[in-house]
Amino acid sequence: MSSGHHRLLWSDPEIGSFFAQDAEVEGFLRFEAALAKAQAECGLIRVEAAKSIADACESFRVDIERLRAGITRDGMIVPDLVGQLRETLPALHQESLHFRSTSQDVIDTINMMAFKSAAALISGRLNQIVAQLDRLDRTSGSVPQMARTRMQRALPLTLSARVSAWCAPLQRHLHRVAELESRVFVLQLGGPIGTEDSPWAKSMADLLGLGVPARSWHTARDLPSELASWATMISGSLGKIGLDIAMMAQNEVGEVKIEGGGKSSAMHHKSNPVDAELLISIARYSACLVSGIHHAELHEQERSGSAWALEWMILPDLLEVTGAATLHCLNLLKRSTFMAGTA
Amino acid sequence: MSSGHHRLLWSDPEIGSFFAQDAEVEGFLRFEAALAKAQAECGLIRVEAAKSIADACESFRVDIERLRAGITRDGMIVPDLVGQLRETLPALHQESLHFRSTSQDVIDTINMMAFKSAAALISGRLNQIVAQLDRLDRTSGSVPQMARTRMQRALPLTLSARVSAWCAPLQRHLHRVAELESRVFVLQLGGPIGTEDSPWAKSMADLLGLGVPARSWHTARDLPSELASWATMISGSLGKIGLDIAMMAQNEVGEVKIEGGGKSSAMHHKSNPVDAELLISIARYSACLVSGIHHAELHEQERSGSAWALEWMILPDLLEVTGAATLHCLNLLKRSTFMAGTA
Amino acid sequence: MSSGHHRLLWSDPEIGSFFAQDAEVEGFLRFEAALAKAQAECGLIRVEAAKSIADACESFRVDIERLRAGITRDGMIVPDLVGQLRETLPALHQESLHFRSTSQDVIDTINMMAFKSAAALISGRLNQIVAQLDRLDRTSGSVPQMARTRMQRALPLTLSARVSAWCAPLQRHLHRVAELESRVFVLQLGGPIGTEDSPWAKSMADLLGLGVPARSWHTARDLPSELASWATMISGSLGKIGLDIAMMAQNEVGEVKIEGGGKSSAMHHKSNPVDAELLISIARYSACLVSGIHHAELHEQERSGSAWALEWMILPDLLEVTGAATLHCLNLLKRSTFMAGTA
Amino acid sequence: MSSGHHRLLWSDPEIGSFFAQDAEVEGFLRFEAALAKAQAECGLIRVEAAKSIADACESFRVDIERLRAGITRDGMIVPDLVGQLRETLPALHQESLHFRSTSQDVIDTINMMAFKSAAALISGRLNQIVAQLDRLDRTSGSVPQMARTRMQRALPLTLSARVSAWCAPLQRHLHRVAELESRVFVLQLGGPIGTEDSPWAKSMADLLGLGVPARSWHTARDLPSELASWATMISGSLGKIGLDIAMMAQNEVGEVKIEGGGKSSAMHHKSNPVDAELLISIARYSACLVSGIHHAELHEQERSGSAWALEWMILPDLLEVTGAATLHCLNLLKRSTFMAGTA
Repeated sequence: MSSGHHRLLWSDPEIGSFFAQDAEVEGFLRFEAALAKAQAECGLIRVEAAKSIADACESFRVDIERLRAGITRDGMIVPDLVGQLRETLPALHQESLHFRSTSQDVIDTINMMAFKSAAALISGRLNQIVAQLDRLDRTSGSVPQMARTRMQRALPLTLSARVSAWCAPLQRHLHRVAELESRVFVLQLGGPIGTEDSPWAKSMADLLGLGVPARSWHTARDLPSELASWATMISGSLGKIGLDIAMMAQNEVGEVKIEGGGKSSAMHHKSNPVDAELLISIARYSACLVSGIHHAELHEQERSGSAWALEWMILPDLLEVTGAATLHCLNLLKRSTFMAGTA
Repeated sequence: MSSGHHRLLWSDPEIGSFFAQDAEVEGFLRFEAALAKAQAECGLIRVEAAKSIADACESFRVDIERLRAGITRDGMIVPDLVGQLRETLPALHQESLHFRSTSQDVIDTINMMAFKSAAALISGRLNQIVAQLDRLDRTSGSVPQMARTRMQRALPLTLSARVSAWCAPLQRHLHRVAELESRVFVLQLGGPIGTEDSPWAKSMADLLGLGVPARSWHTARDLPSELASWATMISGSLGKIGLDIAMMAQNEVGEVKIEGGGKSSAMHHKSNPVDAELLISIARYSACLVSGIHHAELHEQERSGSAWALEWMILPDLLEVTGAATLHCLNLLKRSTFMAGTA
Repeated sequence: MSSGHHRLLWSDPEIGSFFAQDAEVEGFLRFEAALAKAQAECGLIRVEAAKSIADACESFRVDIERLRAGITRDGMIVPDLVGQLRETLPALHQESLHFRSTSQDVIDTINMMAFKSAAALISGRLNQIVAQLDRLDRTSGSVPQMARTRMQRALPLTLSARVSAWCAPLQRHLHRVAELESRVFVLQLGGPIGTEDSPWAKSMADLLGLGVPARSWHTARDLPSELASWATMISGSLGKIGLDIAMMAQNEVGEVKIEGGGKSSAMHHKSNPVDAELLISIARYSACLVSGIHHAELHEQERSGSAWALEWMILPDLLEVTGAATLHCLNLLKRSTFMAGTA
Repeated sequence: MSSGHHRLLWSDPEIGSFFAQDAEVEGFLRFEAALAKAQAECGLIRVEAAKSIADACESFRVDIERLRAGITRDGMIVPDLVGQLRETLPALHQESLHFRSTSQDVIDTINMMAFKSAAALISGRLNQIVAQLDRLDRTSGSVPQMARTRMQRALPLTLSARVSAWCAPLQRHLHRVAELESRVFVLQLGGPIGTEDSPWAKSMADLLGLGVPARSWHTARDLPSELASWATMISGSLGKIGLDIAMMAQNEVGEVKIEGGGKSSAMHHKSNPVDAELLISIARYSACLVSGIHHAELHEQERSGSAWALEWMILPDLLEVTGAATLHCLNLLKRSTFMAGTA
């Protein structure tokens, strides 16, 4: 998504920050400190080691150049970050760091924390959109409009019916996210080959604000898929609102007026339904991306480097554009005035 | 999926039958009879009319050529089928047929009945696979194998760990289908523009074995999307099993032997892991198809002919290949013997 | 694509026939006869053997039940078909059948012959569409219409400008297919592991109406991908015509009237732009399917059963729906009358 | 692609720079200066105006904050950039800037210049890969290996056969890019509604290093699709090399040794085939993205804001990851030593 300044159009700065480089390193430090603390509670490592690790995490400053070399070599951040952090520890406690864990535990857990934050933000915005639609229904629900089926005039309806059709799926998305809570937003802690049975998992998960899965999900990627499907359904529902409003904003239809519409460089009389269009673009982009997340379910054996990286390439983007869609939708509804059509 | 005889490889005759031409006409008749019965109970139409419609549905014989002409003209089966059925009614009751309903109510409801049947069948097969995996764990769980991460030998594990990794997502899919039950497998009954408030909906839904949605979902296509995501996740989880077994069946790895493997036309010593490969093919095919279902969420206004037809093109196929995957998986597990590897 | 009677809406009977079961068996027989004839010319097998094989191919009657069992076991038609055909040969010539060939040579070549026929048919229809558009331009090019950018009225234009915008990509597609001719529509003849250097290839290719590739393309699947991209671009260009006409057919816009539009089961005043909508559906379906063909480029080693079957699942469908789109477009243009808009 | 530091794994800094923010503004300035120069040559604007515009472009400094506000309002960069640049011109020449052009002319032309640069870079790297494979064939072509079909040992072959199978599609991609040269890498210059017939197009295209299309391609998006298909086929062909090498690098197979393989954070004996895996990830990611470009062919009427933005979201990324794949492939081949397998 390196499309010059245009990238702004499908960015969500808050969600973007969850997946930023410093958030990733911060997530790594939270993981290692929580692992050590939970393992110390279980007596697996010494309490002083956990304390020392916590201190080291507190004061850690990453060497970016070295990290980048590590990523290029290892295909991921963890081996080098563990190495960098370990060097700051007293020799005595070095072996207690990252103990019985593995890179995938770290990365999946970091990502899941960010996913959970993103889902919470998106859900909050969905609630705002629902509230905005409720207000719209109260203030303008009786505005007469023309139902169109198959792009042809059908029968009269009121705006209220449209608002209600827009709202219903959003409310279902809010129910669905509750199901994700315990099933998807969970710790990863399987150890090198995903088989670790970790008595410290519950304590560690609590520290990180995650649930505990029945079993490590190193290669059971239905969890990312379910999240991705949820996000894509949201983009789809918001895209439908965008498409409707763009259709209603056609000059000949005139069932909505959007304040502050986009300017044209050549035709000064125009007012383009920019937010509405972007809702459509994002819905289609998401519908393509989600396919890749389903492909990424095909892990061979105990870990697929290729399927795993495919997830990294897609899921943060998918959540960010979904977030951007919620922003465009809020903006669009705020600036839209609905009215009986011109025809 | 007109690929000559090869089509057999991704067919599921049972699921295919739910979407066959006669099942479609049968579904239409069930819809109209249930609508009339429920409306008669509410006093909306006369009881004799409902009785007459029920009789007509019972004895109806479709004129296929006329239906095909109707489909070509109308883009769907309903206008002509209603016309054909109406002609068999006494003039007195003709207006009571299809009363306050619309084509989309019929087609979405027919499809949802078939979707529900398909999901039940797939769920039953998932339960069989889980049982088969449980048996495998009891009989062979202690077989030593080699974990491989990123396609490299990692550490020893037992078959039990692999079986457990295969099982966990299947069990989640069985939980998810319970959530679909009330949210997705619901009647469609919105009338011409989706705004009908139908007191007869509950009674009608009961007759058809479906739930009642909060509101008609003519343009709220998160319901088909949620179902499609569920099916695609299943294909993905089964594809992962196929990929694992294909990897384990490599001659140099030798952790599984598949009885009755596919023959080569040129190399008679070979035994090809056909079912395992097809699990992979189906997973990838599903991952592509599901994208189209998400695109189909973008209905413009009160009904999109194009988005709706896109669903018809995809969702029956997606469910059928998912069903085919369950069959291949059952067959593959039945014929696989796991062992310590050759290396 | 088992969606009951609705399947009719995206069928192309002619292209469907190229991929039908009997065409597949017929293609197999053509392959084996041509292989034997060409090898006899090179002195690789005896002339009498080739003659005997030709006779056997002429009189061959497939045992369908046995073939289906073979497909289920082998994952493809060839081992059993070779077996069935060989049994009809004198013992003396049995080893000359399918000599130094392999299943993939057969199936890829059969498919490529069908692909070439489908591309020729589609190209012929594109030429008809171009001719129809030329006529439209001559008869109605001066009809005034309103250009709309970003769904807003922009500036007046004439129908001629629209026709010209629709035509230009179609003419490029006709140029592209000429490039496919020598690059894509080629024989497959690599032998068991794709390494055969076959002096009889040229002669055999001539018999089958195909070109000769620089090297066998068992695992070089850019050839199917290039064809699939071509078909998808065509669906896209026709989908754009459909989208335009559906937009122009909106009652408030009124820039086109489509004769014999689709009926509604509930609203008798409506005339739905069925062909236009289906052009959009097919374009989006194709855009999803083509993704799978690109995934199918990832053959592992000398043949991937899973990637190969993925192609079979998609490419015949993709070509058939593209063919269906050309039919819908021809029909749509024939029935459309363009006019100055109502606004 | 905001996935923290991991983004490095699918970045191509050179291609990234073609789509960077400053390159975009620079492209805009090149466009406007060339437009003015070419129009002055044709006598459409005054020579002094063109000179003044050239000077203004030379000294232009963008106000980023203002630009970002403009993008948010207009959905694109052009209206505000034209406004900013115009303000720096003498009043006398202000109307000569951007004369008879439109935002889409600017953005499509900027992007096409960047696409052409990216394609040239990728082609150069493909040539390097072909040269590397040629060297490999000369030095190690006779290394014996085992062909595997359907993941089963088939027959012996030499490395030379594999190298040749890898090379053939790359050479076709190099032929295909020559076809793109005149058909795809062309100027956009259609004016507000795509209908401008611009005698200054040839001169302007020469200044910008592009060809001249038969007609403006505002809504004929087969051009971006053909480019996207080309890039995706390249990713696919390189992904196949990665998949092969990852399979050959399995410990039990041992047909290749990759120097400097990735480290594991938990298992110090491992050497992960990182570049090979990333080639697979990128191929699959590209195969998903290309679907969106085909969807973006569906422009409604004379310009679709939503379809157009969808292209911006995808095509720069698609080219960048394709570029990254060429880098990974070069690196992988450089570090790979092929040998007879262990089995």
